[in-house]
Amino acid sequence: MPPEQFLARQEKLLSLIREAGVDALLVTGVSNVSYLTGFSGDSSALLIGPSVRVLISDSRYQTQIAEECPGLEADIRTQKTKQPDQIASVVSGAKPAKLALESHIVTADEFARLSDAIGKTDSGKPITIKPLASAVEKLRQVKDDDEIKETRRAIHIAERAFLAMKATLTDDLTERQVAHELEHSMRRLGADRAAFEPIIAVGDHSALPHYRPGERRIGESTFVLVDWGAALPSGYRSDLTRVLATGTVPSQLQELHGVVLKAQLAGIAVIRPGAKLKDVDAAARRVIEEAGYGDFFGHGLGHGIGLHIHEEPRLSSIADGELQPGNIVTVEPGIYLPNFGGVRIEDDVLVTPDGHEVLSSLPKDLD
Amino acid sequence: MPPEQFLARQEKLLSLIREAGVDALLVTGVSNVSYLTGFSGDSSALLIGPSVRVLISDSRYQTQIAEECPGLEADIRTQKTKQPDQIASVVSGAKPAKLALESHIVTADEFARLSDAIGKTDSGKPITIKPLASAVEKLRQVKDDDEIKETRRAIHIAERAFLAMKATLTDDLTERQVAHELEHSMRRLGADRAAFEPIIAVGDHSALPHYRPGERRIGESTFVLVDWGAALPSGYRSDLTRVLATGTVPSQLQELHGVVLKAQLAGIAVIRPGAKLKDVDAAARRVIEEAGYGDFFGHGLGHGIGLHIHEEPRLSSIADGELQPGNIVTVEPGIYLPNFGGVRIEDDVLVTPDGHEVLSSLPKDLD
Repeated sequence: MPPEQFLARQEKLLSLIREAGVDALLVTGVSNVSYLTGFSGDSSALLIGPSVRVLISDSRYQTQIAEECPGLEADIRTQKTKQPDQIASVVSGAKPAKLALESHIVTADEFARLSDAIGKTDSGKPITIKPLASAVEKLRQVKDDDEIKETRRAIHIAERAFLAMKATLTDDLTERQVAHELEHSMRRLGADRAAFEPIIAVGDHSALPHYRPGERRIGESTFVLVDWGAALPSGYRSDLTRVLATGTVPSQLQELHGVVLKAQLAGIAVIRPGAKLKDVDAAARRVIEEAGYGDFFGHGLGHGIGLHIHEEPRLSSIADGELQPGNIVTVEPGIYLPNFGGVRIEDDVLVTPDGHEVLSSLPKDLD
Repeated sequence: MPPEQFLARQEKLLSLIREAGVDALLVTGVSNVSYLTGFSGDSSALLIGPSVRVLISDSRYQTQIAEECPGLEADIRTQKTKQPDQIASVVSGAKPAKLALESHIVTADEFARLSDAIGKTDSGKPITIKPLASAVEKLRQVKDDDEIKETRRAIHIAERAFLAMKATLTDDLTERQVAHELEHSMRRLGADRAAFEPIIAVGDHSALPHYRPGERRIGESTFVLVDWGAALPSGYRSDLTRVLATGTVPSQLQELHGVVLKAQLAGIAVIRPGAKLKDVDAAARRVIEEAGYGDFFGHGLGHGIGLHIHEEPRLSSIADGELQPGNIVTVEPGIYLPNFGGVRIEDDVLVTPDGHEVLSSLPKDLD
């Protein structure tokens, strides 16, 4: 991405910093630093405010920062300095009267340690430290054109890998082998890695919404739930779920599948700018409740995807807020019957200025 | 692992909880919960004290907890309850006068939110919340026999995959392809995944200690640095680094290699119970400094490995404490010359009751 893109993001963040009534924000979230600067390393922090912009890092990253962030001032420590002391020293030089920390990311210990170290610096006036949650995440939940393009690519790669996996699926493969083959295919197609450890859940394992693939073989049941996605080198991700029939499936599973599909379509149908997050969840949940399975849909309807696999906005019954153009969310209702099996159908949906676009396109039938 | 193993770990933790002067600890670190209970999911917390032991989780994990943690009491929330409120309610039932939180893991926001929610419960007497850092990590840095066995296996798999990669290395492969092939081999050999994204750094890319593999091809230089490891299904990990000659290497690189190797052997030589962490770092660092490259070794000498790739103890010039039997640490000195290249040699070393055992066995020569 061109450097101007990062400068534009920094400018947007400055508005939020001003709104929050502070003079600077210390950005410590790895993806947040990367989103704002293009720096792909970790263990670094960006001090940013109307009158300061410094990337605080260590000597391991000196060359990399020069390459990835042309024009950005960097403060580099050697292994003799501890990071909180380095940060305190940089902050002390910038002298913000009020400094915000990313209180949803820094640990309680880090917050205390930084407050302490900054308090000890000789900066003339005392510096007040305030918590500020999710400012960069607020920007990140609205995707720009480059980010939408990258997400489309992450979905496309995941879908192609799924079709390849399906074409070569045999009864003797274990869940773990299928998961590894899926990731291997996604990488051949240009992914950096799987967006998360794929869930390959044979038979009643599918009743565990967050099952980790194990040694059960495909042939040990007649259906398998697959929840997978690709992460690109740029960090953008896809997240999809399908249930595949690998034999004659129980009629109750077919029934569950019909209900979940109807619920998913009902959820997708109400996605548009201004739709309340909890209303989207409710639209899908109602279908499952009316079919009598309300107690077996124990998670929210979906979540934003981007540099992280779980981002804002969340589609759930306890979420506040509403959708806006540029959000990309999963829609993934499920019904899970213990010791029997579960069905979840998941697609990725972009909120457009006048409605929505389902970015994923794999058939949803239980075939 | 047998359930008694987890009970034994919980008992050891109870001693630390008593020592810290609190009545219970809320364990929220994913690996910590898993280490203490055998539960392999996330988003859950263990409330543990002399008079309480409850796993606090949600309905996605209900079946899984029953399978993985027989005998452990579980409190399960539905999607209508927020986690802090659930935790507050469980804590309120247990009525500890002093409750510790893992202040090195919970975010500043979570700390505030939990304090607030717990403060609002009607538990008769007020509950005092205290920060407590790294109690479970203190146990985790001393490995038991099962953990040492798992680490040996993670090293063995990584070494076999490296030899397979070396045997089939060709000039046209990109760094990224080599990284993916390495992970694929480790999985075929029984790993769950790579312990971290392998570093495959061709030529001067090796001067970046935390380089991420890209599109440069093996044939574009005469040497490549490989830093890789395996993570087993149990979570235990290995971490190794070698530099491979793929052509006639510059004589300065050979010189660097000789210095780094001498430094590594000097570091390993002083590893024994009671050795100060900073002295081990110093033993290796001195060799590099005396050769005139002190400014080009910008990181610590090594770190513990286990369920995480970076654990205590740290071998560095600013570390306090000393080695004890059962520690497993990496020893990985390096010299990095910008725009030229870098050399790092890394092995995994167990601290034994009377000295040390180098667990890894790949040749260290630049061949």
